[in-house]
Amino acid sequence: MDEFDLIRRFFAHPVIRKDTVCGIGDDCALLDPRRDQVLAASIDTLVAGVHFFADVQPEALGHKALAVSLSDLAAMGAEPAWAFLALTLPDADPFWLESFSHGLFKLARKFRVELAGGDTTRGSLAISMQVLGWVPGGRGLLRSAARPGDDIYLTGSVGDAGLGLKMLQGEMEWRDEAVLERLLRPLPRVETGMALRGIAHACIDVSDGLAADLGHILHASGLGATIRWQDLPLSASVRRYIEQTGDWRLPLYAGDDYELCFTAPCSHRLQLEQCLPSQEVPWHRIGKIEEQQGLRLIKGGKMITLQQVGYRHFQND
Amino acid sequence: MDEFDLIRRFFAHPVIRKDTVCGIGDDCALLDPRRDQVLAASIDTLVAGVHFFADVQPEALGHKALAVSLSDLAAMGAEPAWAFLALTLPDADPFWLESFSHGLFKLARKFRVELAGGDTTRGSLAISMQVLGWVPGGRGLLRSAARPGDDIYLTGSVGDAGLGLKMLQGEMEWRDEAVLERLLRPLPRVETGMALRGIAHACIDVSDGLAADLGHILHASGLGATIRWQDLPLSASVRRYIEQTGDWRLPLYAGDDYELCFTAPCSHRLQLEQCLPSQEVPWHRIGKIEEQQGLRLIKGGKMITLQQVGYRHFQND
Repeated sequence: MDEFDLIRRFFAHPVIRKDTVCGIGDDCALLDPRRDQVLAASIDTLVAGVHFFADVQPEALGHKALAVSLSDLAAMGAEPAWAFLALTLPDADPFWLESFSHGLFKLARKFRVELAGGDTTRGSLAISMQVLGWVPGGRGLLRSAARPGDDIYLTGSVGDAGLGLKMLQGEMEWRDEAVLERLLRPLPRVETGMALRGIAHACIDVSDGLAADLGHILHASGLGATIRWQDLPLSASVRRYIEQTGDWRLPLYAGDDYELCFTAPCSHRLQLEQCLPSQEVPWHRIGKIEEQQGLRLIKGGKMITLQQVGYRHFQND
Repeated sequence: MDEFDLIRRFFAHPVIRKDTVCGIGDDCALLDPRRDQVLAASIDTLVAGVHFFADVQPEALGHKALAVSLSDLAAMGAEPAWAFLALTLPDADPFWLESFSHGLFKLARKFRVELAGGDTTRGSLAISMQVLGWVPGGRGLLRSAARPGDDIYLTGSVGDAGLGLKMLQGEMEWRDEAVLERLLRPLPRVETGMALRGIAHACIDVSDGLAADLGHILHASGLGATIRWQDLPLSASVRRYIEQTGDWRLPLYAGDDYELCFTAPCSHRLQLEQCLPSQEVPWHRIGKIEEQQGLRLIKGGKMITLQQVGYRHFQND
């Protein structure tokens, strides 16, 4: 099985989108643009031993490689359309590839994403996924769009993926499959991001950790914020972890949750309630954007200043 | 220097294109589409030890990583617009990064390509580059568009990059800097590709080797071809190599030249002469598309059937 067999067998599915003029198999994909919409584009890389354990289930890896890129589109309010996969593999193991492509295509079908191109090369296991989507002109949810007085919201819950990582690393004496699932198969908040167009001001996905990612919004908007501990959405497992260890910083600094953190003016509260039915993806107000620089946490009647940092590659170089 | 410093310092240049609504620094880039044009998109990966020697000049690597992706756009007749860089590095060496980004941006400026996004991660050295460009609707140069009776053309010359590789590998007793340059800093035939819109039928860039890449056109078009040895454009160094070694197969099977191989009907010959002034990028007619399947070479009065294969990853797995 050489690279062309591999592409034919595992990745060259029949075209599913009408706006895909030419998919896998030529020098380029050819894609129809949309009138009055702008193209949203992002690329993300997952490296074995850095972003995932090399022995992770390939199906989960295929899912996650696409999920983290779709999460960037969600954070911009964009509707996903196409993906491009740069897959570097130590060898062409058909069982691994079958499982990887199954996880990838299952998530792709859910959001009508077409795998429109890629490159398969030999090397240390790493996956880059570039995604393209559409957002109506002027409605992209920029990090720089927060305004003083905006409420700050968060979908789902934070800290689960970080706790899942501790479980995989053998640091915990108990396991919770739902928490592991959050780490292994995160669900990008695509519908929520699209529903927020024209309602939310700023938006970001929580990949580096809440404090770091909310920090990106504050930095880009030139503002500060105060969030309340009691309003942070935490799963029962994360609460249990904090009770056992006292490590309340985990949900603020652990990454990989791929929830959306967004800001909106108080006057849009009713619209939010109409557009984001909380049954599907829960969402909570966790604080307020303020003129005063810095990120503050109110916890047990005290105000704590938070470092706006998360995991960074090369931080010790 | 963490990953954010690295991006700011080496990659987050001021925006140069009016149609870049939002460049590096948010969850996604936002890009204005063009009316009546389709988006051409391609991704390519270069892996250290596979596609290049780990000690290659980083400036040449930055150049080549973009060049090979732009070559795919050229082969589609597309005008380049944006690039997305997924850079995986063992460490953040500022000297390496300065040189790499210099090579990348120098070529990007030449073709008005905006680096609109990327991801920087730690791992074994590998570079994935995704590029986006525009081609008028219906004018993309597809591999499947060759017709019986088409002339087959080739820009520049073939075999130089393959000979350059032999020089770097220490297989040769002489060096030719111009030949090494072809391997290290290939120039994508962007203007030629755009000039061929509406004139050429099929087109491909020669990355895997002439026999393999022309073979892709033949396979996609369901046709065959005969090419003539005496018409193959070969540099003086490649001729010298063949005289010394007898290895006349090199220019047919060595890859990495990034020339364009295209087909056009005889009736378009005059248009070709008008649109492709040979002073800038030379081009030569090397053979004919035929109904009869297979790829044939006429050499020294004999007809030789050529294997339509080139380098393939995983071919021995």
